Amino acid sequence: MKLNHVVESQQFTVPLLMELFERTKSMERTVRRGGTRDYEHAIMGTLFYRPSTRTRFSFESAMYRLGGRVLSTEHAMEFSSEVAGEKLEDTIRIIGHYCDVIVLRHHEEGGAKRAAAVSPVPVISAGDGTGGQHPTQALLDLYTIYRECHTLDGLSVALIGALDQGRTARSLAYLLGKFDRTKLYFIAPEEMQIKPDILEYLEKHGVSYELASDTRDIISHVDVVYQTRIDRERLASKDIDLTPYNIDRAVLEKMRSDAIIMHPLPRSVEIDHAVDDDTRAAYFRQTQNGLYVRMALLTMLLDNE
Amino acid sequence: MKLNHVVESQQFTVPLLMELFERTKSMERTVRRGGTRDYEHAIMGTLFYRPSTRTRFSFESAMYRLGGRVLSTEHAMEFSSEVAGEKLEDTIRIIGHYCDVIVLRHHEEGGAKRAAAVSPVPVISAGDGTGGQHPTQALLDLYTIYRECHTLDGLSVALIGALDQGRTARSLAYLLGKFDRTKLYFIAPEEMQIKPDILEYLEKHGVSYELASDTRDIISHVDVVYQTRIDRERLASKDIDLTPYNIDRAVLEKMRSDAIIMHPLPRSVEIDHAVDDDTRAAYFRQTQNGLYVRMALLTMLLDNE
Amino acid sequence: MKLNHVVESQQFTVPLLMELFERTKSMERTVRRGGTRDYEHAIMGTLFYRPSTRTRFSFESAMYRLGGRVLSTEHAMEFSSEVAGEKLEDTIRIIGHYCDVIVLRHHEEGGAKRAAAVSPVPVISAGDGTGGQHPTQALLDLYTIYRECHTLDGLSVALIGALDQGRTARSLAYLLGKFDRTKLYFIAPEEMQIKPDILEYLEKHGVSYELASDTRDIISHVDVVYQTRIDRERLASKDIDLTPYNIDRAVLEKMRSDAIIMHPLPRSVEIDHAVDDDTRAAYFRQTQNGLYVRMALLTMLLDNE
Repeated sequence: MKLNHVVESQQFTVPLLMELFERTKSMERTVRRGGTRDYEHAIMGTLFYRPSTRTRFSFESAMYRLGGRVLSTEHAMEFSSEVAGEKLEDTIRIIGHYCDVIVLRHHEEGGAKRAAAVSPVPVISAGDGTGGQHPTQALLDLYTIYRECHTLDGLSVALIGALDQGRTARSLAYLLGKFDRTKLYFIAPEEMQIKPDILEYLEKHGVSYELASDTRDIISHVDVVYQTRIDRERLASKDIDLTPYNIDRAVLEKMRSDAIIMHPLPRSVEIDHAVDDDTRAAYFRQTQNGLYVRMALLTMLLDNE
Repeated sequence: MKLNHVVESQQFTVPLLMELFERTKSMERTVRRGGTRDYEHAIMGTLFYRPSTRTRFSFESAMYRLGGRVLSTEHAMEFSSEVAGEKLEDTIRIIGHYCDVIVLRHHEEGGAKRAAAVSPVPVISAGDGTGGQHPTQALLDLYTIYRECHTLDGLSVALIGALDQGRTARSLAYLLGKFDRTKLYFIAPEEMQIKPDILEYLEKHGVSYELASDTRDIISHVDVVYQTRIDRERLASKDIDLTPYNIDRAVLEKMRSDAIIMHPLPRSVEIDHAVDDDTRAAYFRQTQNGLYVRMALLTMLLDNE
Repeated sequence: MKLNHVVESQQFTVPLLMELFERTKSMERTVRRGGTRDYEHAIMGTLFYRPSTRTRFSFESAMYRLGGRVLSTEHAMEFSSEVAGEKLEDTIRIIGHYCDVIVLRHHEEGGAKRAAAVSPVPVISAGDGTGGQHPTQALLDLYTIYRECHTLDGLSVALIGALDQGRTARSLAYLLGKFDRTKLYFIAPEEMQIKPDILEYLEKHGVSYELASDTRDIISHVDVVYQTRIDRERLASKDIDLTPYNIDRAVLEKMRSDAIIMHPLPRSVEIDHAVDDDTRAAYFRQTQNGLYVRMALLTMLLDNE
């Protein structure tokens, strides 16, 4: 299957996901062996209009482990001709002459699609807009579940936090809906519940789901807890109790012994640091998987050239 | 011919230009073959006191295609000891221990010359001051004309825009004046016409030129249209009509079929996007040539070491 | 001897210093030969919460001369999740998945120790806090004395400037105190003299020292002059005469012919530029030694893996 650009998680069919995950597994082995030099002539351009040191490092490390080079800008918005009113399309046409693949984080929803439409080289979105897509996060999330649970069929997954805005939770719900017998629990304060478009999508595809408002009611049923952040500032009533949406040792005790806790990070108080040492805390393994998934995506795009 | 530093376009004689352009052609082949590793031990330091993502990426990509490494600062002004009042000369003496060639964009006119005077390694100016030199831009402009027109003799070239401040147009006029039977047209609003120093230089060297105020009067005569930007804010009378200085499909129709349109980019409205698909639109090829010219310059400097 | 992290100069015993300096000498030869590729699979992450282009370049150049790769952030404070309130510990745990060694400059005293406590890979402090440690500076200072004076025993060293805050002078005094028959002169305006904790340490270890207030009284006795900066703004009485703390050609004439002048740089007016051409001016050689010392440290840490 040919992959030209990575702009949204919806473009990934189940067979393409499986091909990606096979490559990802082989990348784990490659890294353990100290990396490869197979892509030593390849140059990746990382163009971040919104800074994100962690996501940038993850992509750049992926390219280095493949043997390649990196052109990098931490803050293209501040440091580029965009200031002078240049259109994104012109920037991409030019930067595309200097590298073999572009990683773009853009501040406007749809930026990645616009870039892909004119780019002479493959474009990978590292997130666009605030409500937009962040497809590689969704892919590494799904790979983590696959890697930890050894299957993607028949899983019960609780998604917790500010689900209305959380693009990671939204994308993951979308991707999980493609697999058999998935059961999703959306746990959020009422004003931050998942938006109807996702629920309609799930109903259309016969995916079972439940809305809930307390993690503790659900936690013992699930294979995966996908925790996200709640910004207290966003809550209309500032004295709302957020305890039902936090994970601490008490919540941990109710979890199944083979369940896992995920989080896209950075976290605030919603996962207590006392939870970190539990083997079920998978969030640091999850960020490590980001490296392997991005390596796999880069090889799929560069092998096309 | 030995090249020690690249600080101004005037230092390039016609034989040196021809040597550079021969190397540049061979770099096009090198890039098509996937780059070289001949300079894998070389380190380039890019020291930008004014951020310019595109110029920086062009230099850094050039170094990578040669196999080398890059030390990079996006915004040395903000991030360096210059804040603490350190003199540029001290900075260069120190950074010169960490790399094999320095690419410097400095905010003060003459910064590149001051750096070259004390540097233990070759210095390439990536622009200094606002009215100062940007020699690699002038060289890639000239190479583009050579590459597209297959000669540098007997060419008619129209330079359009805010020519008084446009260092790219000024440098190009200077270099073109070195070749036989050049004819230059300077097309600008009266208050932004090319400055007398360039005209005196052209007269002294017997180069034919004309001043004009409407592109449409000239366009059918020329081999090359070199379009630059006009910042409307600079115009004393804000309601001046800029149509005579823009290029759109109507202007395109009057151009010769073998003529080309160039622009140093970024552009604003002065070249309509509808022009982009015409084969005569050479401005994206021009930025690509920047990569090859910079590779060639780097090899000339590093081969001296 | 196994080196796990480099967080403070106190962790270096005399035998470990000697092992480091042997490696450092061999790195001088490696660089003269054009570098090595022995560490081509290694990735260094440079995480600077306070920008310092020079220190960053020194580390990154060291990694490149060893053949490795670099993930770099010029200004992690501005560009990272720290903005979102993420704890340093979480950042380090994640970044540690993307590289083989972390170079950290943190704005809080003790940041490097906190990072080392949780990091999955070795951490090198590139300075923390304002009064905190900057161990690699202390090590390159000591190596420079060793390299220039061919011994570390029986040396007379004058430390000049704002010694109360100067972490470089403090660390150097500490390290020099480990060697036989050291004699230290602390020369500073009274309100900026070295703090009692260092003097107590010296007394406890039987190291001879003197406090003084004029460089010219001492200069003819010493092997090494270690000059640092005085920020005039810090002085309570703004019209205090700083001449006794400056080095110019007149002071130079009183120095021994085999003595050396050092400075951690950047300098302001405290060393006159007329001094630069004297062979005793060792401050630019000192910065070059920083490259070799950092290469040696990186190999000691990476060889452990």
